[in-house]
Amino acid sequence: MLLPEIVKAAMPESANAAMKYGLTKSDVILFQGDSITDAGRNRRDEAVPNTPASFGSGYALFTAASILANNPNKELSLYNRGISGHKVFQLAERWEKDCLELKPNILSILIGVNDFWHTKNGSYAGTIETYATDFQNLISQTKGALPNVKIVILEPFIIHGGTALDHTWENDFAPYRDAAKKVAKDNRLIFVPLQSVFNEALKRAPAEYWGKDGVHPSMAGAQLMAQAWLKATL
Amino acid sequence: MLLPEIVKAAMPESANAAMKYGLTKSDVILFQGDSITDAGRNRRDEAVPNTPASFGSGYALFTAASILANNPNKELSLYNRGISGHKVFQLAERWEKDCLELKPNILSILIGVNDFWHTKNGSYAGTIETYATDFQNLISQTKGALPNVKIVILEPFIIHGGTALDHTWENDFAPYRDAAKKVAKDNRLIFVPLQSVFNEALKRAPAEYWGKDGVHPSMAGAQLMAQAWLKATL
Repeated sequence: MLLPEIVKAAMPESANAAMKYGLTKSDVILFQGDSITDAGRNRRDEAVPNTPASFGSGYALFTAASILANNPNKELSLYNRGISGHKVFQLAERWEKDCLELKPNILSILIGVNDFWHTKNGSYAGTIETYATDFQNLISQTKGALPNVKIVILEPFIIHGGTALDHTWENDFAPYRDAAKKVAKDNRLIFVPLQSVFNEALKRAPAEYWGKDGVHPSMAGAQLMAQAWLKATL
Repeated sequence: MLLPEIVKAAMPESANAAMKYGLTKSDVILFQGDSITDAGRNRRDEAVPNTPASFGSGYALFTAASILANNPNKELSLYNRGISGHKVFQLAERWEKDCLELKPNILSILIGVNDFWHTKNGSYAGTIETYATDFQNLISQTKGALPNVKIVILEPFIIHGGTALDHTWENDFAPYRDAAKKVAKDNRLIFVPLQSVFNEALKRAPAEYWGKDGVHPSMAGAQLMAQAWLKATL
């Protein structure tokens, strides 16, 4: 398959060429996040790496399947531990069990949309400062426990025109994206610019095609994310 | 993502270059087959095209996601109607509803492993002649009802060394592969040589990596199948 032209356009070769993580034999790769990562995975199977049901049907599955098919001699172990609805503080609460104990060599994190979204209905009182601070603390804790871990930060994104978004998202969610980008930059981590990818995608088809509600990607949207992850990281 | 080297090695450019189906605006693409196609899909959602849950987590999902991400302006509708355990006569029984009514422009069929497997425990009395005849009849019926349909035949395969296979499979399943290939050839249809792909894959990692029981592909095996499908067809 060709790398979708959207990913090529949104992520020019020059942008990230200096830093790639690559893969080493026996690497453990962990995908962490919220519902976008979870994607309906079967949590009963999560203890066994590389099982399709435990990966759901989102970008983590597509990314993992591609890595496994392309690297049969590397004996990789891939896990998905995304949980629907989670905000960054909820990752922190389960970090020992759902990250540190797995000892990932590559750790992929996509978190932030609920940190904003759940403030809209009054169910959560966290601010952008809470998110930025908690996210940096999570990275510091992780690097303290796993000094050699290579972390991939995925930009939290919205798909403009999605049914769950109102007019406030455009301006009010931007600081969350900036905060995630700052965490990546401050810690010299790979950053996957998913907002650029979806903005580019929207030139070709409307939100309904890439993720109807503007938050949860469609099959096509998830595949774009996987291609962007692979292009940025490996 | 690069096309996995295994698919490149198993399917040299020259082999099938003369015939590709390509995609046309508003095409309907239907995946039909048994458990390998089904892959745990949610049948409640099957009426709506392009939904990840309705695609399960197998090669049909990976193929569909890739097609959708690469062709946002084509307004494609993709369906998965594989059902676990099915043999070719069971496809025929539900063909009106699960194929003809959907009016596919491209129809992908992977069927055959149960036609052999279920004879092993005495639960099915069909022979290789039953399979070959029923398969040809299914194609004739389809072409009669949908004269312009473009059909892709996927080679039924085994992953040598899988736990569900005994010594009889090597010789006794081969005629089923040959029959599927003959159906493709006699009707001038695209044929995806999946046995060659998995034989090539086994040079790099054992059966456990590509599909533990020898019948149902792993995440890596399903991704190989998708890449082979795409390379052969588009």
